[in-house]
Amino acid sequence: MQTVNMKPATSAHSDTAHRVTALNRNDQPFHVVLAQQFDRPMMDQLCQLADMIRTIANSRQGSRFLRTLLNHRRAMLYFIQPSTRTFLSFTAACQIVGLPYNSVRDRSTSSEVKGESEDDTIRTFSQYFDLIIMRHPMEGFAEHVATMLNNMPRTIPVINAGSGKDQHPTQALLDIYTLYRSLADPQDARTGPRYTRNVFAGKTIAFVGDLKRGRTVRSLAYLLCRYPGVRLVFVSPPELKIGEDILEYLTRHDIEYDVAEDLRTSIGEYDAVYMTRLQDEHDVDGESKSIDYDRYSITREMMPDFKPNLAILHPLPRRNELDARLDATPYAKYWQQVRNGMWMRAALIASIFNVDVPIRDHYQAYYTF
Amino acid sequence: MQTVNMKPATSAHSDTAHRVTALNRNDQPFHVVLAQQFDRPMMDQLCQLADMIRTIANSRQGSRFLRTLLNHRRAMLYFIQPSTRTFLSFTAACQIVGLPYNSVRDRSTSSEVKGESEDDTIRTFSQYFDLIIMRHPMEGFAEHVATMLNNMPRTIPVINAGSGKDQHPTQALLDIYTLYRSLADPQDARTGPRYTRNVFAGKTIAFVGDLKRGRTVRSLAYLLCRYPGVRLVFVSPPELKIGEDILEYLTRHDIEYDVAEDLRTSIGEYDAVYMTRLQDEHDVDGESKSIDYDRYSITREMMPDFKPNLAILHPLPRRNELDARLDATPYAKYWQQVRNGMWMRAALIASIFNVDVPIRDHYQAYYTF
Amino acid sequence: MQTVNMKPATSAHSDTAHRVTALNRNDQPFHVVLAQQFDRPMMDQLCQLADMIRTIANSRQGSRFLRTLLNHRRAMLYFIQPSTRTFLSFTAACQIVGLPYNSVRDRSTSSEVKGESEDDTIRTFSQYFDLIIMRHPMEGFAEHVATMLNNMPRTIPVINAGSGKDQHPTQALLDIYTLYRSLADPQDARTGPRYTRNVFAGKTIAFVGDLKRGRTVRSLAYLLCRYPGVRLVFVSPPELKIGEDILEYLTRHDIEYDVAEDLRTSIGEYDAVYMTRLQDEHDVDGESKSIDYDRYSITREMMPDFKPNLAILHPLPRRNELDARLDATPYAKYWQQVRNGMWMRAALIASIFNVDVPIRDHYQAYYTF
Repeated sequence: MQTVNMKPATSAHSDTAHRVTALNRNDQPFHVVLAQQFDRPMMDQLCQLADMIRTIANSRQGSRFLRTLLNHRRAMLYFIQPSTRTFLSFTAACQIVGLPYNSVRDRSTSSEVKGESEDDTIRTFSQYFDLIIMRHPMEGFAEHVATMLNNMPRTIPVINAGSGKDQHPTQALLDIYTLYRSLADPQDARTGPRYTRNVFAGKTIAFVGDLKRGRTVRSLAYLLCRYPGVRLVFVSPPELKIGEDILEYLTRHDIEYDVAEDLRTSIGEYDAVYMTRLQDEHDVDGESKSIDYDRYSITREMMPDFKPNLAILHPLPRRNELDARLDATPYAKYWQQVRNGMWMRAALIASIFNVDVPIRDHYQAYYTF
Repeated sequence: MQTVNMKPATSAHSDTAHRVTALNRNDQPFHVVLAQQFDRPMMDQLCQLADMIRTIANSRQGSRFLRTLLNHRRAMLYFIQPSTRTFLSFTAACQIVGLPYNSVRDRSTSSEVKGESEDDTIRTFSQYFDLIIMRHPMEGFAEHVATMLNNMPRTIPVINAGSGKDQHPTQALLDIYTLYRSLADPQDARTGPRYTRNVFAGKTIAFVGDLKRGRTVRSLAYLLCRYPGVRLVFVSPPELKIGEDILEYLTRHDIEYDVAEDLRTSIGEYDAVYMTRLQDEHDVDGESKSIDYDRYSITREMMPDFKPNLAILHPLPRRNELDARLDATPYAKYWQQVRNGMWMRAALIASIFNVDVPIRDHYQAYYTF
Repeated sequence: MQTVNMKPATSAHSDTAHRVTALNRNDQPFHVVLAQQFDRPMMDQLCQLADMIRTIANSRQGSRFLRTLLNHRRAMLYFIQPSTRTFLSFTAACQIVGLPYNSVRDRSTSSEVKGESEDDTIRTFSQYFDLIIMRHPMEGFAEHVATMLNNMPRTIPVINAGSGKDQHPTQALLDIYTLYRSLADPQDARTGPRYTRNVFAGKTIAFVGDLKRGRTVRSLAYLLCRYPGVRLVFVSPPELKIGEDILEYLTRHDIEYDVAEDLRTSIGEYDAVYMTRLQDEHDVDGESKSIDYDRYSITREMMPDFKPNLAILHPLPRRNELDARLDATPYAKYWQQVRNGMWMRAALIASIFNVDVPIRDHYQAYYTF
């Protein structure tokens, strides 16, 4: 059985290939900074590992086994930008693999008030910990920190838990994981989808809503390029269209795509829809107010047109674009999506510290026939 | 040996009996929402379990045994209303039974700023946890959440750690527990009071001070109705009398009570006094200022009139109504009361997760003869 | 092998000898309140214990052994004064020895808003915990709390993590520990410096910068008096000279010292320099602005004049007085100093709870030949 090989993705976007290679050298810890650094084998193995962890954690003995894996390490959650849900997801992931953690959530309590640079603050804090999980308002900050730490005598890995409008790689991974589980055929589902199969081939996935300003959609589109045969449809108001750079990237990778403006008439074509809310906090001058966002909502009334196995995803929080009356239907995958994030982050942390091997061994010994 | 049977109280107040039954169905987790949901056998068994836990925790080996009980679960403390002492009491209780936890203490860091409903926030957070312990300013909110979670595919229990001016059931339980331990005769005390005996029969308990606005007194009065033969005296300024509904409830349950206005002349009658502070933060127009609250204080000068085994309780924080010069006397039970809260909450959490049985087994094996 | 004997220092400064004796009686827990309470054998043994802990923690099995030592206890970090780095250092120390903890970092969430005294707040919180680690803006507060808790029926120890401008004893201990490790000759270093040897004899240590207002320098000077043969040089602008009381104290203890105004011309004499930043937050009227603090900076340009084994320390945070281009040189000991604080605090906590003996036994069994 192969372990997760945390090496730079070779098929990365040419613009980022250099950055990915620079970040993850053999003699350095594995930093998780960009969605693009994950190639197909890495994603397959992380999804598989997340499945194993959720199965093992389901029993009391298994859960205790997992909690012994990393109790000799310590993580710091440096969450300068408010984000309770991502914060809780990571803390739960740490607890699953037994990793003690501490958090810094407020810059004002730190020594920066005494004139210290943020670099020095992080260098100081890094002395106490073996991993930094970082949420920061500044674009590219996690990458900067990873580079800085690579130059310290005592180097520790960094996980980017969201930096600016830029990158949120663990969200992209949990989205892939949720799509994988949702699109796998029921036969696979019984034994857990086998992640070496490309379940995306022949499937159509729609991204709906504010595609211009959501970082999750962009990252997810990058990752889906690793799965030949998938078809993507971008459904949005003309003002909030997906960036041209993404479409060019898809073309370059031979991924079929479409752009649409109406959800209601096309809903029947999709195997999965990825809903997003209007990100009007990024409005410069209230320009969103004129948009009829109701056209980019999914409602209970549309159910007759759904494909039988339609999967509805949403990164949450939601507003009206996702009808709460769909919550109790089998189409709703967004609560599982939340929980999947916890499992995927646990898998990622386990892989960074190379304890994926004992997890696979434990799974092999107790859960396979 | 019988385990704590977490079933609806059958002798509950008729107004709440329906709510209690609705909350705690056989196919749902046990939510702790109202003081009234605890009947006599449940209280007896929780007190007994709390005693066992404190005895077991006293040894290093025992403490470690307890910490293995729930380390495969995770709790969230959702404490939107500030309350450090209840918060710390619950976290210590979690630590005693080895339950990892996380906390949300500030609404502003959550996604509600992005337009999310609080229901969605809690539904999302609930994906990461196996128990929600909730402190909230809104009356009835814990009950609302319990109902909402009962309708989720993945249902988890809720503990109400105080909602509005309404209910604070764990405070009522710890008060009962402290009274029990204080009123038990010394013979019982040597082996731990046997909680199947009604130690309250023939005893007089005074509630003193602001009885109109304190939720703890109300909840405790409800619970004391489960012990026939107890006599309650309500000592308060005329402006701050106990509610008529409580007195009617006592009458309906054949509990003898009295109403008094003077503490000094009656102190010699009481086996226990439950002091409370003036809750002038609930004043509408400073009406408390005209009240001579000193008459509802207990002081070192009154000691000659105390019954030899008088127990003084106070939910804390205190002001002048409880003389600090009584702290070092044997009458003072309020510090133990604080600590009892921690043991009682540990007992409650253990019961919710059905690990009361191994605790009883461990106690039987190592601490009885 | 001798264990750390947590008894009052007999050679303490005469002014504080009485306080130290009052604090630490045989029948009371060991409170860590003043730097002066540590005598030479205590410091030697704490440094040795810190070395053992870091060695043991380096292996996975060792780290797990350490985490079993105090998992039957609970600590409270009462950090009313903001201090992220000391807070994180203590939490990491707690995690190393497996001590669960909780924190109170904001007075406003406590019951003081309801009119409770801070003494009552701490007395209440103390019911839930077995140790209080306290950071407080008020001078002498930790000492006050230690005395107060000694009068409670249930007494628990206090560690002063910084009170006002007054005392920060654990910083002084970690500074001694870092100097010890830095000044030991390489032969010792291979097997860990043997702390019963006085490595300070014949060495010159310079304190540089704002010596008037830094509590760390004062505490460290007190502790260095325990090592005959050390020579201290105080290099500062005339406006920020070290206090006369310290110089008198050194004279009384036969410690050789010098006062200097220029760092550049004297740097070649020093075996260690302890840099400090300008503490202009204590300015009354901006008086620091006229000081040419650049003269009290150490830079990469000065390297040719350094002694080959010069050790540069800094309590951090730094500004310009410590050139970041020195970070990657072997002279820089300030990152290790940060990490040493964590090990020293773990050693201190272990000693307070008397688990230093099992640590020494474990070390003897697995790491000596």
